[in-house]
Amino acid sequence: MSKAIGIDLGGTNIKGALVDDQGQIILRRAIPTAAEEGPRAVIERIRQLITELAAGQNPSEVEGIGVGIPGQPEAETGLVLYAPNLKWQNVPLGQELRRYFDYPVYMDNDANAAALGEFLYGAGQGSHNMVAVTIGTGIGAGIIIEGKLYRGSAWSAGELGHTVVLPGGPPCSCGNQGCLETLTAGPALLRLAGDKIKQGQSTALAGYNSLEARDIFWEAQTGDKAASEIISEMAYYLGIGIANIINILNPDRVVVGGGVAQAGDILFKPLKEWINKQALPIPAKTTQIVPALLGNDAGSIGAASLVFKKS
Amino acid sequence: MSKAIGIDLGGTNIKGALVDDQGQIILRRAIPTAAEEGPRAVIERIRQLITELAAGQNPSEVEGIGVGIPGQPEAETGLVLYAPNLKWQNVPLGQELRRYFDYPVYMDNDANAAALGEFLYGAGQGSHNMVAVTIGTGIGAGIIIEGKLYRGSAWSAGELGHTVVLPGGPPCSCGNQGCLETLTAGPALLRLAGDKIKQGQSTALAGYNSLEARDIFWEAQTGDKAASEIISEMAYYLGIGIANIINILNPDRVVVGGGVAQAGDILFKPLKEWINKQALPIPAKTTQIVPALLGNDAGSIGAASLVFKKS
Repeated sequence: MSKAIGIDLGGTNIKGALVDDQGQIILRRAIPTAAEEGPRAVIERIRQLITELAAGQNPSEVEGIGVGIPGQPEAETGLVLYAPNLKWQNVPLGQELRRYFDYPVYMDNDANAAALGEFLYGAGQGSHNMVAVTIGTGIGAGIIIEGKLYRGSAWSAGELGHTVVLPGGPPCSCGNQGCLETLTAGPALLRLAGDKIKQGQSTALAGYNSLEARDIFWEAQTGDKAASEIISEMAYYLGIGIANIINILNPDRVVVGGGVAQAGDILFKPLKEWINKQALPIPAKTTQIVPALLGNDAGSIGAASLVFKKS
Repeated sequence: MSKAIGIDLGGTNIKGALVDDQGQIILRRAIPTAAEEGPRAVIERIRQLITELAAGQNPSEVEGIGVGIPGQPEAETGLVLYAPNLKWQNVPLGQELRRYFDYPVYMDNDANAAALGEFLYGAGQGSHNMVAVTIGTGIGAGIIIEGKLYRGSAWSAGELGHTVVLPGGPPCSCGNQGCLETLTAGPALLRLAGDKIKQGQSTALAGYNSLEARDIFWEAQTGDKAASEIISEMAYYLGIGIANIINILNPDRVVVGGGVAQAGDILFKPLKEWINKQALPIPAKTTQIVPALLGNDAGSIGAASLVFKKS
């Protein structure tokens, strides 16, 4: 059976998996990234993780190593041009892995890898033109055009999180204002919660010591008014951002992932309503909006899928 | 030499051209559309136009007929699903033309045809991933992905004019608010001019009997303050809309056409500045922003290019 090793290099943890060519995980491993120790130490930990995952496997059955990067790798060389969360610039990760291992190494940014994973093995199966939106600390999108990952002219396609949906809106880490992620990603939800608490709105959110985005969804689910308002506002702007990419690309499916994939109707119902209102009738009708299916494994399965697609 | 007949079916005129496979026009003809006489009469005029353009040609040298539609044709059958400016719904234009002529007939919407024309013979030559934005009464875009026209899952890709850039903004013909074309297309510029005149701002624009968008560019060029403010506002929102599609698609070229292609620095200088501010650094650096080159012939050359690309 054909297998691949998928590495999901995150800001906090490095997740690795041995994955078969049906997208099933055979073996999982995770270790802290500890990016503060510098690139050499991180690469050494990735090497150990791969060694553990490959141990006992028949090398001829392992087709290669795929790595999803929280930043931008250079396709041919495997040089990581930048990865802001890791404070990496021009780190030759691909070259180093090729020195240690005989397997081919494929790299892409994590949003693209997750999109390919969902397309091959998750909620995108059977689609032809697909957008996978991943919502977390930021917002990224991976684009499948006619069954193939589309990367753009400089590997920078899919920056949906930095499309402007509210001119003059909240400041963004990119230097611009009103980018989609300033209104709908995790930190935006926490900012809105903080505002409501400061304004003295009576809400269960005020009772949390260390509020997380998932708590806001939980409280909205149980009827907290402030939490519900925050999710409504998120659905509105996310609806604009997704309707915009639907009007531009007319995909047949949009997969929405990250922590919010589990949010259910409380997010997806108003989100679909806003998308239907804001996208033109034909593109809106063409597009199914579905939650991602691969959950926490999206990153490693997606990275492994880079190997199977040899892309 | 290989030739094609390109028909640009517009709301006011039907323009036709005999075009060689280098994109050069051999013969031009135009007649009024007179859409009020109904589809059958319009089809008859298109038939006459094609007959005139093909007269005296060796049929073996004419590869086919291409038609650009101000609406949405169905690829395989040539049925025009709708064309709002003509008040057409389900008009079997392709079938009728095939009854009259032995040539193959290719059809697409006019924004796609113009994009393909610019890609093959105009300002898009040599690019790989290209967006051609056409600004007129509305705003349309045609998208080239890896050298091929990308039409989306239901032939509706490229609806850049209906991406929302100002939530709650001016009402749009599509029923939504704040769509890009409500802020940057011809009627938006005239609305802004009307507002300024009503507010009593001293401006040369008040002296026109029947103001057109081109007059606003002309007055801005000669230093009229109100006209300059209108062009500045247009450049700002158009910059957001184009930066958004650049962040999503990371193209290597964006071709800006329609009447504004001749506007020169007065539009393109602030437009490029806004795009550079609003798009992320890598996609902004990857993308050349250039005016369209085919001018009034974009429609008919684009329609002919559908034949040469057999698409």
